[in-house]
Amino acid sequence: MPDEISRGALAHAHPKKVRALIRRGNWRHPTAGLCHGYVQANLVILPRNLAYDFLVFTQRNPKPCPLLEVTEPGSTEPVQTAPGADIRRDLPQYRIYRHGQLEAEVTDLVGIWQDDLVSFLLGCSFTFEAAMLQAGVPVRHIEEGKNVPMYITNVPCRAAGIFHGPLVVSMRPIPPALIPQAIQATARFPSAHGGPVQVGDPLSLGIRDLARPDFGDPVTIRAAEVPVFWACGVTPQAVAMQAKPPLMITHSPGHMFVTDLRNEDLV
Amino acid sequence: MPDEISRGALAHAHPKKVRALIRRGNWRHPTAGLCHGYVQANLVILPRNLAYDFLVFTQRNPKPCPLLEVTEPGSTEPVQTAPGADIRRDLPQYRIYRHGQLEAEVTDLVGIWQDDLVSFLLGCSFTFEAAMLQAGVPVRHIEEGKNVPMYITNVPCRAAGIFHGPLVVSMRPIPPALIPQAIQATARFPSAHGGPVQVGDPLSLGIRDLARPDFGDPVTIRAAEVPVFWACGVTPQAVAMQAKPPLMITHSPGHMFVTDLRNEDLV
Repeated sequence: MPDEISRGALAHAHPKKVRALIRRGNWRHPTAGLCHGYVQANLVILPRNLAYDFLVFTQRNPKPCPLLEVTEPGSTEPVQTAPGADIRRDLPQYRIYRHGQLEAEVTDLVGIWQDDLVSFLLGCSFTFEAAMLQAGVPVRHIEEGKNVPMYITNVPCRAAGIFHGPLVVSMRPIPPALIPQAIQATARFPSAHGGPVQVGDPLSLGIRDLARPDFGDPVTIRAAEVPVFWACGVTPQAVAMQAKPPLMITHSPGHMFVTDLRNEDLV
Repeated sequence: MPDEISRGALAHAHPKKVRALIRRGNWRHPTAGLCHGYVQANLVILPRNLAYDFLVFTQRNPKPCPLLEVTEPGSTEPVQTAPGADIRRDLPQYRIYRHGQLEAEVTDLVGIWQDDLVSFLLGCSFTFEAAMLQAGVPVRHIEEGKNVPMYITNVPCRAAGIFHGPLVVSMRPIPPALIPQAIQATARFPSAHGGPVQVGDPLSLGIRDLARPDFGDPVTIRAAEVPVFWACGVTPQAVAMQAKPPLMITHSPGHMFVTDLRNEDLV
C-alpha cells in the first residue's frame, strides 16, 4: 500500500485499521486527528524491577499519570484497551532511552523486546481537547498547527521509590467567558488528565515566561485571554528518565498508541 | 479515659481525635457512624514481594478496589490520607492471616510489624451510603441495624499475577423511583466503589438466593423494591486470601481506618 494515505481518510477509521496500517509500515506520522472518538495513549515501558515504583508513582500522581492499563511482564498485548494489538509494532515511532539518554528513535521494538518489560498506557490530552472543541472552547495550538506548549513547574510530584520530579503542565489560553466550559468539559475525563490544575497564575507555578515553553511550541495569547494549565503526560516520562533506568522506551512525541476505548468510556 | 465513650459523641469528631482514642485503647468497636463526612478505608497489608501484583490487581479492578493510598514498604504512616497516623495502632481491630488462614484478631500490629510490609488503603461504601442518605435514598441494612448483605458473583475480576477471583458485590434494595438518585449519588464517588455494577438481575450475577448472602446479613426486600448491586471492598480481601500469602493483615470487618480525607475530596 502507498505511504500517502491521508490523515483525513483515517479521521473516522477504526483503531484496529489504523494499528494494522502502522504495523505494516504504512503510517509513520503523528496520530493526532486519527480515529475520532477513540482514546489515544502515552506509552512508557520499563523493566519489571522498576515497574513497582513507577506504578506507585502513577497511583500517587493521577492527574499527570492517568493509568489506563499496565500489561503483564513480557506481554506485548494490551488486553484491556486494545485486544489483539502488539505494543512492539503498533505505534508509528518509539524512543529508546538507556540510562536516561536517548539512544535511538525506531519504528518497532521487535529486535529489542525483553521478557521483563512492562508497558504502561497513560491517558492523553487528545481526549479532553476533543471535549473542549465539542463544548465550543477553542484550542489555540490546534488552530495554529503547533504542539501544545508545556512547562516544568515548581510543584513537586509525590515521590514513589526512585521516581520523583516536578509536575509538567500544558497550557491553553482561554477567553474568560469560556473558562467554566473548559473546566467542565475536561473535568469529565479524569483518565485523560481531568480538569486543569490552575487558572491564570503562571508565576505561582514557577513559570516566568509563557513565550518560552520547556517543551512544544509557544502559542498566541490574545488580549484578555487567560492561561489555563493542565497536568501533562510528559511528567511521567520526564520523571522516569530522571531516574536513569538501564532501559526505558516511550512513544515518540505525538506518535501515540490508538486504543479501542472510546473517549466516553473514560467518563 | 473510660471505655464507654458513646458513638454519638464521636459522630462529629475529627478523625485525628478518633484515631488517638483508638491508639490509646479507648475505642475498640466498629467505626460506622464516626466522624461524619470523613472517608473511612479498607486496609490490606501485604509483604513487598506480593505488593506489585496486588497493586496491578487494584488498577485492573478499580470498582471493587478503589485505591486511596499505598504506603512505602515498611512505613507505618499513610502520609497522604492521614499524616501522623500509625497504621499499626490506629484501627480498632485487625485480622492476621498466614497462608490464607485466619490466625488471630488483634488490636495492634506493633509486635508483628515487618520492614517489608506495604499497606493498601481502599475506599469503602460508608462514603457512598452517606451520599445516598443525603439524596433521600433509604439504606435498608442501616435501617435494620445489620451488616450489608454481600454475595460472591460469577463475574471474574481481571487477574494480575497471582491474584484472581470473583467479584464480590453488596446489595441494597431500592424503590424503582429512587434508583436514578441512588445511581447518581454513588457514581460521584468512584474512589468509594462508584455507581452500581448492576440493577435488578441477581441471577445473571450467579446469585440464586438473596436471602442467603455469602457475607453479612440478609435484609428485608419490600414488594416492588429492586435489588441493586455495588462492587464490594471484600473482593480484594477475598482475592488476596485465595493467593494464600505467607502473611496478610486486614482490618476486622467494620473496624475501618478513619482518614483525614473528606468524602467530597473523592468527587
